[in-house]
Amino acid sequence: MTVKIILAGPRGKMGSEAIKMIHNEQKFQLVACIDKKNNTKADFNHLEETPIYYDAEQCFSEVSADVYIDLTIPEIGFPNTKLALKHNLRAVVGTSGFTEENIQELTRIANENATGCIIAPNFALGAVLMMLFSKMAATYFPDVEIIEKHHDNKLDAPSGTATKTVEMIQQTRESKQQGHPDEYEILPGARGAQNDGIRIHSMRLPGLVAHQEVIFGGQSQLLTIKHDSFNRESFMDGLKLAVNEVLELETLIYGLENVMDIN
Amino acid sequence: MTVKIILAGPRGKMGSEAIKMIHNEQKFQLVACIDKKNNTKADFNHLEETPIYYDAEQCFSEVSADVYIDLTIPEIGFPNTKLALKHNLRAVVGTSGFTEENIQELTRIANENATGCIIAPNFALGAVLMMLFSKMAATYFPDVEIIEKHHDNKLDAPSGTATKTVEMIQQTRESKQQGHPDEYEILPGARGAQNDGIRIHSMRLPGLVAHQEVIFGGQSQLLTIKHDSFNRESFMDGLKLAVNEVLELETLIYGLENVMDIN
Amino acid sequence: MTVKIILAGPRGKMGSEAIKMIHNEQKFQLVACIDKKNNTKADFNHLEETPIYYDAEQCFSEVSADVYIDLTIPEIGFPNTKLALKHNLRAVVGTSGFTEENIQELTRIANENATGCIIAPNFALGAVLMMLFSKMAATYFPDVEIIEKHHDNKLDAPSGTATKTVEMIQQTRESKQQGHPDEYEILPGARGAQNDGIRIHSMRLPGLVAHQEVIFGGQSQLLTIKHDSFNRESFMDGLKLAVNEVLELETLIYGLENVMDIN
Amino acid sequence: MTVKIILAGPRGKMGSEAIKMIHNEQKFQLVACIDKKNNTKADFNHLEETPIYYDAEQCFSEVSADVYIDLTIPEIGFPNTKLALKHNLRAVVGTSGFTEENIQELTRIANENATGCIIAPNFALGAVLMMLFSKMAATYFPDVEIIEKHHDNKLDAPSGTATKTVEMIQQTRESKQQGHPDEYEILPGARGAQNDGIRIHSMRLPGLVAHQEVIFGGQSQLLTIKHDSFNRESFMDGLKLAVNEVLELETLIYGLENVMDIN
Repeated sequence: MTVKIILAGPRGKMGSEAIKMIHNEQKFQLVACIDKKNNTKADFNHLEETPIYYDAEQCFSEVSADVYIDLTIPEIGFPNTKLALKHNLRAVVGTSGFTEENIQELTRIANENATGCIIAPNFALGAVLMMLFSKMAATYFPDVEIIEKHHDNKLDAPSGTATKTVEMIQQTRESKQQGHPDEYEILPGARGAQNDGIRIHSMRLPGLVAHQEVIFGGQSQLLTIKHDSFNRESFMDGLKLAVNEVLELETLIYGLENVMDIN
Repeated sequence: MTVKIILAGPRGKMGSEAIKMIHNEQKFQLVACIDKKNNTKADFNHLEETPIYYDAEQCFSEVSADVYIDLTIPEIGFPNTKLALKHNLRAVVGTSGFTEENIQELTRIANENATGCIIAPNFALGAVLMMLFSKMAATYFPDVEIIEKHHDNKLDAPSGTATKTVEMIQQTRESKQQGHPDEYEILPGARGAQNDGIRIHSMRLPGLVAHQEVIFGGQSQLLTIKHDSFNRESFMDGLKLAVNEVLELETLIYGLENVMDIN
Repeated sequence: MTVKIILAGPRGKMGSEAIKMIHNEQKFQLVACIDKKNNTKADFNHLEETPIYYDAEQCFSEVSADVYIDLTIPEIGFPNTKLALKHNLRAVVGTSGFTEENIQELTRIANENATGCIIAPNFALGAVLMMLFSKMAATYFPDVEIIEKHHDNKLDAPSGTATKTVEMIQQTRESKQQGHPDEYEILPGARGAQNDGIRIHSMRLPGLVAHQEVIFGGQSQLLTIKHDSFNRESFMDGLKLAVNEVLELETLIYGLENVMDIN
Repeated sequence: MTVKIILAGPRGKMGSEAIKMIHNEQKFQLVACIDKKNNTKADFNHLEETPIYYDAEQCFSEVSADVYIDLTIPEIGFPNTKLALKHNLRAVVGTSGFTEENIQELTRIANENATGCIIAPNFALGAVLMMLFSKMAATYFPDVEIIEKHHDNKLDAPSGTATKTVEMIQQTRESKQQGHPDEYEILPGARGAQNDGIRIHSMRLPGLVAHQEVIFGGQSQLLTIKHDSFNRESFMDGLKLAVNEVLELETLIYGLENVMDIN
């Protein structure tokens, strides 16, 4: 069976990688793109043979497809994904920044149309597993710190993945203060940021790409879960998985970890 | 509620740590020990107040208890554990080397008596989680290598934990050859040992204690799960967990991972 | 040749390790101890055969020795070391907290008596090398961050070793701001402490002992220098080295790195 | 002052990076290239404005320059470097595979012409420092193992850098057997390759790039020196350094470590 795919956001960095991935995957076929800057034809990313639409409604009406992939921005991605689901197109959304209300509305539409939808803020399977394992480990190891390391072009600290990891850990970890109650900083900031007692340290250096370690401390033992990502290619295995999994779904699932087969 | 415990093997290294743990845990009470070298009383490990039995049958008949902990050798541990289960004493067995037949027989007796039993070859919760997470990750990352590091007094390589990790990974990993098909060793052994295509590397140095890293490689990403154990104290959280969990069981469970609450 | 040693501070943790080290080293001989709580004889640390002195002057007058090891506190160690040098006893001082003036005065006395003295705030050879290599690397890699990890009983952050490492790096590193000029913290402290633009992160968890990583970032490359110390035994190789090296000296040297043969 | 550079090997991967580096460095100027496949002009790597020569002799006669960079193969690089030195052009050679005789002859010519030459098999400053520090550390930590990790397209194991690291360590390490004398492998290869008692482990996984750790074990302590290289850009800082250093030389130096300012 061939999976026919419409892709929105073909000019972005994620979009470019997605096009390569679709071309390399025998059972996938790119049947159209949606791009606000192009119409009919495009001369980038080897898309010369692929119809390009400016208008999503027209695209979904004219082109027969199985899956809609959205790699845009919330202002475009939200209305487009709604349209796709109404056209009974299964949707895989990598766009980040959807609100709680956006997700609730898309869930309602997916259910009404019995059409699968996967929204995933992170497609790197290794990062998703790192967060999932961290949540599992925190039941038994409530003392945990995170160190995330990125290139020195990154402006914000801590990273979104570190923040998301803390949220997942909080689902199982008994709330507690960590470190010695009388500890003190000789230099302010030495002990890092904290969220619910969990310390987060952000390193920024040239040469680093995107790395995170979650370190759990117990009695005379340490458990460390670490992810290294070297470029956007690392998202493609997860995107491929989402496309395959969404074909089996009739509802909306948020977070790649919830379609992964962990046992 | 107080959990009354009979311990076999109080003189060994694990036994000494277990006695400390039981003393430190408010709800646990050491009511007797079984030791082939002592009877009635012992003057080691602060056991002056604890009755010591040479004979297990006599101990189980005379002493009222909830849990029997076996930290001995198979020749002693197997018959003793059978006796304990027949006396409706729940059993936690840390003795390694039980045969498949031993385990089957103990399972039968546990079921007949509706008495819980946990046999765990490894009580370090972090090591158990490392193996469990490795099994989970291998579904998505079939390319994996293991490096284990121990002090240079260790004679055998690879370690039992490395071998057990490979077995657990094999439960989910699609069998495959790893590395380049044309790879070659300039110095023999450089690529390590292999089991089902999974490479295992054993480092031995003074200063090392007991460490293992399981490294999964994917497209432009790495996922690493690492455990460091610094001494036998690291087994005590797992032993405590097993004592608590066995109270709820009416059958035999092999492997601590199968009583852990992972979700 | 046998090296006859007088040790001050035999009851402390470092002192106990030092006694073991001296006993294990064939060419070393413990000829006396100085201890403010004992006189003549002691019944701890297998010192039954070793004369113990309350008074340093008396000890140095009565006992013939080659090296005086001071593992006490500055209030005791400073006057005792002065006395030792005046008695032409070579001195190895592991006591921390000597002032700049203390060191200048001891240097003067060592030179006057042409008697060697080594003062070393850190006897762990691996830690000394880590700091030395960090100083060397910083000439070529001025972008550097430090992460130090200790057990959660440690009160102060960052560690003394981290602070000392920064000082050594400053000897070769061109002063510069690191990270993106527009970087910002979403959670305060995420980017750690800073000293001269060098970020320092302090992790505190049960299970950790004493660890430090110095990470240098360059164009598409990282250089990491890491030290792990598991207990006070790790100081003994350095103490042994200092005793051997001080025999050749006729002046005072501060810092073990300055007697190490690095080339 | 502007440093005028002639580059041989502009089409290779290293050559492409070198051209970028020269363009980005204000005081460097690319005045000509030597390329066996092109003459006069080239339309790759933004070389449209740079004269290209097929013949080295003609190039050196017609073009005034300060430094000749050779990034070719030994069959081309050796005669070209000889010619360059005879033309009093200082030479920086990154070509690997020169024989001992090649190097001796080039040394003689460099000395005769009082013209500097640097031959460096590895331009990654971090890797050079890792090897240098390993040599230094081995004096005090003779127990050492190496683990090198590369992508699974690499055919040979262990890597050239690992082999070179062992050679440098051997300059200071007392020859000794490592590990327990009675150690044994349950699975052959577990303990890795060995050279002079030093164990080397080679990991090959997708997602890895080029990494090496040198781990020294001592009494209750570990010292680790690690280098990660993410692409050929990591060689450019070292090439730039060599160009600057060769301007001050009147002889041949082999190995970047011998022009680095380490103190």
